[in-house]
Amino acid sequence: MGFNRNLALSYLTDNHYRFLNELKAFSSIPSISTDPQAKPAMLQAATWVADRLQAIGMENIQIMPTNLHPVVYADFLHAPEAPTVLIYGHYDVQPPEPLELWVSGAFDPTIRGEYIFARGVTDMKAQILTTVNAVEAIIRTTGSLPLNVKFMIEGEEEIGSPSLDAYMQANRHLLACDLALNPDSGMQAPDLPTIVYALRGLAYFELRVHGPDHDLHSGVFGGAVLNPAQALCELIAKMHNPDGSVALPGFYLDIPPLTAEERLEISRLPINDEWYMINTGAPALWGEQGYSSVERTGARPTLEINGLLSGFTGTGAKTVLPSWAMAKISCRLVPNQDPEVVYQALKTFLEINAPPSITWELTQMAGSPASISERNSPHIQSLVKAMETVWGVRPIFKREGGSVPVVNKFKNILGVEAVNTGFGMPGDNAHSPNEKLHLPTWQLGTQAMFHFFINLAEG
Amino acid sequence: MGFNRNLALSYLTDNHYRFLNELKAFSSIPSISTDPQAKPAMLQAATWVADRLQAIGMENIQIMPTNLHPVVYADFLHAPEAPTVLIYGHYDVQPPEPLELWVSGAFDPTIRGEYIFARGVTDMKAQILTTVNAVEAIIRTTGSLPLNVKFMIEGEEEIGSPSLDAYMQANRHLLACDLALNPDSGMQAPDLPTIVYALRGLAYFELRVHGPDHDLHSGVFGGAVLNPAQALCELIAKMHNPDGSVALPGFYLDIPPLTAEERLEISRLPINDEWYMINTGAPALWGEQGYSSVERTGARPTLEINGLLSGFTGTGAKTVLPSWAMAKISCRLVPNQDPEVVYQALKTFLEINAPPSITWELTQMAGSPASISERNSPHIQSLVKAMETVWGVRPIFKREGGSVPVVNKFKNILGVEAVNTGFGMPGDNAHSPNEKLHLPTWQLGTQAMFHFFINLAEG
Repeated sequence: MGFNRNLALSYLTDNHYRFLNELKAFSSIPSISTDPQAKPAMLQAATWVADRLQAIGMENIQIMPTNLHPVVYADFLHAPEAPTVLIYGHYDVQPPEPLELWVSGAFDPTIRGEYIFARGVTDMKAQILTTVNAVEAIIRTTGSLPLNVKFMIEGEEEIGSPSLDAYMQANRHLLACDLALNPDSGMQAPDLPTIVYALRGLAYFELRVHGPDHDLHSGVFGGAVLNPAQALCELIAKMHNPDGSVALPGFYLDIPPLTAEERLEISRLPINDEWYMINTGAPALWGEQGYSSVERTGARPTLEINGLLSGFTGTGAKTVLPSWAMAKISCRLVPNQDPEVVYQALKTFLEINAPPSITWELTQMAGSPASISERNSPHIQSLVKAMETVWGVRPIFKREGGSVPVVNKFKNILGVEAVNTGFGMPGDNAHSPNEKLHLPTWQLGTQAMFHFFINLAEG
Repeated sequence: MGFNRNLALSYLTDNHYRFLNELKAFSSIPSISTDPQAKPAMLQAATWVADRLQAIGMENIQIMPTNLHPVVYADFLHAPEAPTVLIYGHYDVQPPEPLELWVSGAFDPTIRGEYIFARGVTDMKAQILTTVNAVEAIIRTTGSLPLNVKFMIEGEEEIGSPSLDAYMQANRHLLACDLALNPDSGMQAPDLPTIVYALRGLAYFELRVHGPDHDLHSGVFGGAVLNPAQALCELIAKMHNPDGSVALPGFYLDIPPLTAEERLEISRLPINDEWYMINTGAPALWGEQGYSSVERTGARPTLEINGLLSGFTGTGAKTVLPSWAMAKISCRLVPNQDPEVVYQALKTFLEINAPPSITWELTQMAGSPASISERNSPHIQSLVKAMETVWGVRPIFKREGGSVPVVNKFKNILGVEAVNTGFGMPGDNAHSPNEKLHLPTWQLGTQAMFHFFINLAEG
């Protein structure tokens, strides 16, 4: 006899507006992990998560320090015959800049239409709460859980999770589980529940080019020394070939070609060039020749310039010949690419191409390899069935462009596969001003998480 | 019988420390013309100049409004037989950023060793005061002036003097003169008094490249749209040829080649590559092939990147695919190059080279042609003689890399040649942090201005 699901589903509906208030409270905390000034807000967000887990009846709540931002842990382990799921999340968010482009305050969560707007709301505070609220509904309506649940909510995802490896290594027994749930991926559209079976990796760098040892008057010295801003631009221009591919030596060396089967499956995704035009607003698309836009963003590696800074950038004119120029550069990686090898490739590229009239320094900021997982496991099938129950359609399987370093750690440290899903969408402006969450989809996502947990318990 | 010069020279020596206090007061005013917030400081600086001119006995003092920052005018016209000199200056200064590199406050004038440090002290508040103090010494020791003097001190030089043309057109009768003195050039070294007979022009632009209509997540969209920071770098990289020349179409079209005589004369200047290495701290020199460093900075046009800005530039990592990227770009021009033609050349270059995946806008910020003047005029000879009196050596004649738009206006509006000199030096960090002035040279410069005025009067 199966679990009677109706009571818990009614509980979720009854409590929706309280859940919404809690989402507002969580999203109003400016937990910007990259900002040294935000340390108190980071602790406040961790405490908020711990308090919530306590309130829903989870046990063994701990705010566990790391070298930087703490990890929140909790468990509920009273189903010895059932599997154990480790629920991952991150309570940190991207910086909200540029602030002037936000219609309402980045940390003043505001509902307009079917959406709530705030930094971090879709990436991923609301996603964490889909799992927390689903667990609450089961505990509060049955007094227990039919499976074993552990939460591991970190605070450094947006800066590449530098402390997580050591934390997970040190706590591998505490974190032992049968599968990991990572709700930090997303879905394609409100009617397209999505399971992500591959994630791109990330290698992030800061490149600084130094020329004269102080800013110079461009009239007095211009023409006699190489302008470091010009030198940086010339280096960056050489990082792509005319066909849109990345020109770092050996960048594609370890990457197996996409199989015909994979390409066919990718071509079935309901995403076309028009979708990319609408969701980016770019005047025209662009990318590596020989690949579709979905392949370019999901299945091929890329090199992006995330930031540029040099000289005078204020209003008006200043005739300075700047002393240095800086670029933030990141590569998205596909399976078999090693972030360390990419770092060496960029270093070699610079050694070959940098002119003698400047010096340069390259800093590694974050790195994680890509991941790809089995699509037919019973755990994945539990999620497929849950999504079919809620949306009435079969979820789509997708390779995703983003990077979630923790997925590799589940495999390497805990020996388990991750189930990657989530209820944010590409148009949600994650990492941009006016980040938002589609509230009806959030409710359905919570129901899907509830069904997933029960399906896992029922095996 | 000549003017007895000894009394006035003693006056200059006696009053040096008061002059120094006045220089400190003037240099402590943050008169940053490009900064809209600095409007009150601009007016304060104009008023300071007007008060000083009043105090030394000048007449007809006026603070004359323009569309932006006022011009300070004063005259003393009691020598009907003698020539009239119009003394030019600017009371505005460059922005002081980056502030953290200043050893003492940018607007807290501080003496260390033989130097005084402050933004604007060498460019050109101290230079204005060499002429003011020389005039004061003559008036206070003789009760009058043996020549006619007009001052025209503007407040927009550092932003390309946008109001000066209309001001001079409207006041051409008030400003009528036999020659103009522009002490905004400089000298090569403390023992090398210098007269500048050619100045480069300036064409300053802001280029903005737009891609997606909002910042994107570089994981979700990276690879499918052209990154505007990458596009900007690729455009900038194409702006120079491999031989270091500027690649804008038609950029060199109207420029006559340097004559053998000019090149010989330039080669006699006591400036070599070692001098450029020491004064810039660059790892190696660079520039247009076929020219020496002095030729590159004085006699050849250039294109410089004065600033770059795009995406995330803070501490840490943010995986943004920026929506736009900006560059400040300026060209130094030589005689026969028209700033408007250079603007059209850059526009044409962008029309040819900009890819369809981005849009761009180009803004003209300032423009002035180069100037070159007669080296054997009696006015120039008056200055040669003055400098020989003070330093005991013949001054050197130099083409200079910087741009002083007003020199063209003297010629076109008032029909007079300018005498370009000054007592700042290339190592003074004009436009950079820790701008400084060599105090002994400043004293000698004031004496040279005094002798120049008397030489002009004596014909």
